[in-house]
Amino acid sequence: MSFALTPKTPAGERLYENAMALIPAFRERAAAADAGNTMPADNYSDMQANGVAAAFVPEALGGFGLQSVQDWITCIVTLARGDASTAIAINMHLGVSRGMALAYHNAQAKGSAADRLAVPLRAIADGRMLICATATEPGTDNLHPLTEATPADDGWCINGRKIFVTLSPLATHLGMNLRMRDDDGDHLVTTLLPMDTPGLQPQDDWDALGMRGSGSQSVVFDNVRVGAGGIRKLGPWGRWSVGMLMNRALANLPLVGAFLGTAEAAYELVADKLPGQQRMGRPLAGFAGVQHLVGEMDIELAKCRAILSAAGAATDRFLAQHETQPPTLEAAHRLMKDYQTAKWVVNRGAIDIVSKAMDLMGGSGYTNSHALARLYRDVRAGPFMQPFAPTEARQYVGQVVLGRAPEE
Amino acid sequence: MSFALTPKTPAGERLYENAMALIPAFRERAAAADAGNTMPADNYSDMQANGVAAAFVPEALGGFGLQSVQDWITCIVTLARGDASTAIAINMHLGVSRGMALAYHNAQAKGSAADRLAVPLRAIADGRMLICATATEPGTDNLHPLTEATPADDGWCINGRKIFVTLSPLATHLGMNLRMRDDDGDHLVTTLLPMDTPGLQPQDDWDALGMRGSGSQSVVFDNVRVGAGGIRKLGPWGRWSVGMLMNRALANLPLVGAFLGTAEAAYELVADKLPGQQRMGRPLAGFAGVQHLVGEMDIELAKCRAILSAAGAATDRFLAQHETQPPTLEAAHRLMKDYQTAKWVVNRGAIDIVSKAMDLMGGSGYTNSHALARLYRDVRAGPFMQPFAPTEARQYVGQVVLGRAPEE
Amino acid sequence: MSFALTPKTPAGERLYENAMALIPAFRERAAAADAGNTMPADNYSDMQANGVAAAFVPEALGGFGLQSVQDWITCIVTLARGDASTAIAINMHLGVSRGMALAYHNAQAKGSAADRLAVPLRAIADGRMLICATATEPGTDNLHPLTEATPADDGWCINGRKIFVTLSPLATHLGMNLRMRDDDGDHLVTTLLPMDTPGLQPQDDWDALGMRGSGSQSVVFDNVRVGAGGIRKLGPWGRWSVGMLMNRALANLPLVGAFLGTAEAAYELVADKLPGQQRMGRPLAGFAGVQHLVGEMDIELAKCRAILSAAGAATDRFLAQHETQPPTLEAAHRLMKDYQTAKWVVNRGAIDIVSKAMDLMGGSGYTNSHALARLYRDVRAGPFMQPFAPTEARQYVGQVVLGRAPEE
Amino acid sequence: MSFALTPKTPAGERLYENAMALIPAFRERAAAADAGNTMPADNYSDMQANGVAAAFVPEALGGFGLQSVQDWITCIVTLARGDASTAIAINMHLGVSRGMALAYHNAQAKGSAADRLAVPLRAIADGRMLICATATEPGTDNLHPLTEATPADDGWCINGRKIFVTLSPLATHLGMNLRMRDDDGDHLVTTLLPMDTPGLQPQDDWDALGMRGSGSQSVVFDNVRVGAGGIRKLGPWGRWSVGMLMNRALANLPLVGAFLGTAEAAYELVADKLPGQQRMGRPLAGFAGVQHLVGEMDIELAKCRAILSAAGAATDRFLAQHETQPPTLEAAHRLMKDYQTAKWVVNRGAIDIVSKAMDLMGGSGYTNSHALARLYRDVRAGPFMQPFAPTEARQYVGQVVLGRAPEE
Repeated sequence: MSFALTPKTPAGERLYENAMALIPAFRERAAAADAGNTMPADNYSDMQANGVAAAFVPEALGGFGLQSVQDWITCIVTLARGDASTAIAINMHLGVSRGMALAYHNAQAKGSAADRLAVPLRAIADGRMLICATATEPGTDNLHPLTEATPADDGWCINGRKIFVTLSPLATHLGMNLRMRDDDGDHLVTTLLPMDTPGLQPQDDWDALGMRGSGSQSVVFDNVRVGAGGIRKLGPWGRWSVGMLMNRALANLPLVGAFLGTAEAAYELVADKLPGQQRMGRPLAGFAGVQHLVGEMDIELAKCRAILSAAGAATDRFLAQHETQPPTLEAAHRLMKDYQTAKWVVNRGAIDIVSKAMDLMGGSGYTNSHALARLYRDVRAGPFMQPFAPTEARQYVGQVVLGRAPEE
Repeated sequence: MSFALTPKTPAGERLYENAMALIPAFRERAAAADAGNTMPADNYSDMQANGVAAAFVPEALGGFGLQSVQDWITCIVTLARGDASTAIAINMHLGVSRGMALAYHNAQAKGSAADRLAVPLRAIADGRMLICATATEPGTDNLHPLTEATPADDGWCINGRKIFVTLSPLATHLGMNLRMRDDDGDHLVTTLLPMDTPGLQPQDDWDALGMRGSGSQSVVFDNVRVGAGGIRKLGPWGRWSVGMLMNRALANLPLVGAFLGTAEAAYELVADKLPGQQRMGRPLAGFAGVQHLVGEMDIELAKCRAILSAAGAATDRFLAQHETQPPTLEAAHRLMKDYQTAKWVVNRGAIDIVSKAMDLMGGSGYTNSHALARLYRDVRAGPFMQPFAPTEARQYVGQVVLGRAPEE
Repeated sequence: MSFALTPKTPAGERLYENAMALIPAFRERAAAADAGNTMPADNYSDMQANGVAAAFVPEALGGFGLQSVQDWITCIVTLARGDASTAIAINMHLGVSRGMALAYHNAQAKGSAADRLAVPLRAIADGRMLICATATEPGTDNLHPLTEATPADDGWCINGRKIFVTLSPLATHLGMNLRMRDDDGDHLVTTLLPMDTPGLQPQDDWDALGMRGSGSQSVVFDNVRVGAGGIRKLGPWGRWSVGMLMNRALANLPLVGAFLGTAEAAYELVADKLPGQQRMGRPLAGFAGVQHLVGEMDIELAKCRAILSAAGAATDRFLAQHETQPPTLEAAHRLMKDYQTAKWVVNRGAIDIVSKAMDLMGGSGYTNSHALARLYRDVRAGPFMQPFAPTEARQYVGQVVLGRAPEE
Repeated sequence: MSFALTPKTPAGERLYENAMALIPAFRERAAAADAGNTMPADNYSDMQANGVAAAFVPEALGGFGLQSVQDWITCIVTLARGDASTAIAINMHLGVSRGMALAYHNAQAKGSAADRLAVPLRAIADGRMLICATATEPGTDNLHPLTEATPADDGWCINGRKIFVTLSPLATHLGMNLRMRDDDGDHLVTTLLPMDTPGLQPQDDWDALGMRGSGSQSVVFDNVRVGAGGIRKLGPWGRWSVGMLMNRALANLPLVGAFLGTAEAAYELVADKLPGQQRMGRPLAGFAGVQHLVGEMDIELAKCRAILSAAGAATDRFLAQHETQPPTLEAAHRLMKDYQTAKWVVNRGAIDIVSKAMDLMGGSGYTNSHALARLYRDVRAGPFMQPFAPTEARQYVGQVVLGRAPEE
């Protein structure tokens, strides 16, 4: 398995081993969560207990101190080999907690009081804080959220509706992007809210083809109040900025790993079972047609692994390069392009791998008692992940290549 | 829709119109059947009432007198636009009843007493007879059934197990292939049994990813008795014969139409809904990326329609050519190759079309309340249909081209 | 070869047989024409001698009286099995002569004096007239030709430059599209000129990767004079009209057949040679990997044949339907969409088939002494054929489906 | 260009820069070499002058001391951006010289007299030695060479015929695999011969579709004499051994880089030219269809780069892991599988990229005066490279995955 993703840093190594250890339990719980359309809560307490949920928390505060995006991806791939729903859910939490850890590091570097920023990181390490995140709304895209924070008293009042708020049934907090207008203009901002904030109304409406254990319900925001300092600007509303491009690329690139992990789970099912099977008294693995299809599946998997690993490594290089001075808008678009490229290849490849696994497994893989049937439904969620939609991604990549990245 | 399949004979024309008329009701019933994992019985009484179920029954006996295989395919495509499960189920019935009508015609042509053969055809026309058919068993293929008829008293005793016995919960009769050994050798034979025959035990175990309304349960045969004349030889067991090749190609080519019809339903959902949709205040149909993907979906659909229509026409020409003298084994393999070719292209193309429709529909198509989610699960059943498995089809086609058709 | 195109009318049948008869001679002459970058003139005298060049000339005037577009396609496929360059070249001549035959029929139907129109048709039948046609110019598309006819004395004066003027080194006449502006507006018009018209300057500059025997040189028009009646309006310049859509679809759909025929020639080379070959003492045809690839090649060929045949049949139905009343613009766009669909599938499929044939033939097919090397170069010309460019076709198809056909 | 291959070691870095510096000159010479079917000798003196040809020669002996296979690949990709024929030719030389450097290192490590082994390495560094290599023969594969060394006097006598002996017109020496039988059995052995050895007869018969400047003529061996110590055993004839698997994988993996480099050259032609082009007064880069196709081309390129880079890195890890103890046969098959996987993806992807570049370049790219026409012919050579043939590779990969690697 030379093309498989492997951890590149010591923190990533520890994370990977702990993620590996969870696969068997995740697999056991996956069918019930899928059938019941419920979240497997034990998966999250397991990840909190063995530190996976605190991957980005500095070691001094009780976490693994992970820094590498490539290793983050490898962790998500690994978790998804156990359960794809859990992998996409914890990825939200990891994305937000990575931002917190970064802010803490920056404060420390500047010598400013980082103590306040340590509080939530300790809460994450202790399993007292689990954060969902959302950027998606119906009828619009990540760059043009309609959920808006308007001035109110000494702070802000939020109204709107988010969909696909993965992890929200179990989360203690919710991070999101929204719109805010002030005298300086029309802004894209982020905020972090406790889930029990008055007016924050989960809709309990998640019932989908797949990823049924991910708790991706809608959340309505009805006059939700947040203090004056509770909002952070990312960039202008409706226009691509460096901040927004990096925010979206970094949050969502590891998400692609969930679909690769799903494909790996399907591949494993076949690779484990097939060698022992017979067809009319002959070993199935001896049929030339089976060998061809296994070869094609293996090649497709290698392709997906190689490009996702390369995208992770490129992102780490990008971050190292821009540690002290921020990238240009053009460079940030190239980062986004790399993510889109990996997403396009892996999402499509992962669907294809699961489909080939079905062909190899035969009719039994099509019955609901077989894990493959769930993987087939789960893996189809990949292309929906924003940005960009499957109707936009190829054109976006071409535009960036041609020096015509979209402004909005 | 220039590549759409259209009826070529007057009988096909009437059948097509009656199939078209059923689409709205089929669509309404599909969600409940899928959710409940039950067969929509009203679909069958509708098809019996308006004559679709009697398509092959001679006009003199109350049917449409259909002869064209191409028109049969068009009928299945049309029914599947309403409900894919129903389309694959009624196709079993149509396949067996076509054989009965052929036997009746042949008897008439020879001047022999065809009256006995008219009885079941009239029962079909009157809606008193609905026939399921099965050739599939676990761990073996269509050519090597292990379900066997052994001599007993004045007839035969059948023992074995069939899987994917589509339509069996509603059927009055069951047709199947099985093994029979006598002094002349080891034979592939067919029989037709009333569903209430003692020892014929439906297992009520159908619970699959898709095609949930097709009633494709297992059936166990435990010392099922059939009279001495109740068995008809098709050819040798375990070796391809002209009879077996034609039996399998003719029964299963129209089945491919069910997957094309599923893709057409997905295409229609998009083509109907998309022009009215907006994204951030702009008509969705105006986005270049949407136009590209719709174009790709349309091209894929044209490809599938053209090859399936051509395979149907080729089959009709083949039957006309061999009406008086049977084909050679080589010619029968070429017929099978044409069917395999159309199956390969359409099954894969149909899956791709439904997937593209999902990309175009966006996240809503991934929720269980949306018909597209069901179509995505239904359409995946295509490649499993025997013969040949997806691990065998390409090699088989190549072998026939190279003059090396497999003997067994 | 059940998916192979076959003639559908008696005239098509005769044409097909005569085209078939030319294959061996065409094949013999192809290598020299390719190497020398020259046109095989004997191919044209053969087609004039046996009537292929007079396919559309009415029987009463010495031709085959062909009417079916589907049969025209079948003829081009067949000729291309012999030599692709010749097939695309004679297709130009056939397209223009079909228009002449139509005008003659229409005149006869109206009872008007058709005698004048019979003259060139007789010349074609006698082999005295061979017509090339051109619509392509650098930096613009078929709808916006820059070659222009301006008023001069008692007629017109033409200036401009056409490229890819296939067949022009041997042609006696040249038909083309050009621009003309008058008080009624800005028009797309056609004209037909003798090749020896003063100012018509062939550039002898054809030296391409493939299709080297097609004589597709540039032609410059330097103050070329044509009489007042020498120009016929097709529609407005720069805007799609029914006339222009039909003109482009009808001229170019059969051209697609040349690339299918090239693929068929490659397929034949493999199918003929492979069964007799050995590899390390074993018959090559017995290797599972060879069988798989042959199967894939055969399936691809079936796909291309089915869709091109269906597009031909659809075009014939379209013409029959609109014989007495012209189609709407919307209907004409659908005809164009059908052509684009077939073109997209066949051009890509044909390239793939020739490439698969190379894989099957091994290294010898890569040497210049092998016909396959030429077929590989010839077949790549397909996608360039206008309209639409490969960068436009998918979007155009999507636009027509979505009711947003481009106006210009 | 985040997915682009970049050097990983200091030696690789220097090599890369020197290879980059040669691109402009290589490009200038490519058309003439292609037209004349001759080798561009200046390319080789340039590579000898700036050290590229001595990449593997230890620094102490005047070379770069390259060790990394991944960097070797990057070098070949870079050279192929200039001229693909030169890249595949020098790759032969580099492969053999790498083996020599390895033998020298091993001798040094053992403390044995390495002086003798330093002689040819110094000759390479001085530009006095240029080595071609060959393993290919007609009608057999790399594992079953029929060219044989039989005992003669105090050494061996070689008879046979090799094809595709790239670089042989300029080489001073020739390395090759051949058969040798002795009392211990039937062996695969290697030898290295001066090109002017009596009986070594170059055939000057290279005239192919592409790679015309690579000098890949046939060589006949007619009673060629070699001394007793002139032959080295690799493993048994006709059976896969660790030695033979590593020999083939290491020699040919970098070769794949030549096809990626060809694709990169095509990509660059488009990316450089397209932004300045207009179509009907509008910038070509602004057309949505152009943007889509550029995006698709870029994604395909990313895929090829990622997998080839990953295969190189995996090979370096493999070599490091097995530096002191040789791999098992199973592990060596997995190395071969990784190479086959990268080869399958890159060879097909590279052909696709060049084809997309042609679509984007329009008709001008199809003329012989355009570099793209040559790239289109060059890039098609990829799939022929042994082992395995395109008819074998997928099955081989599947067999290794299923634990059924072929023994012979």
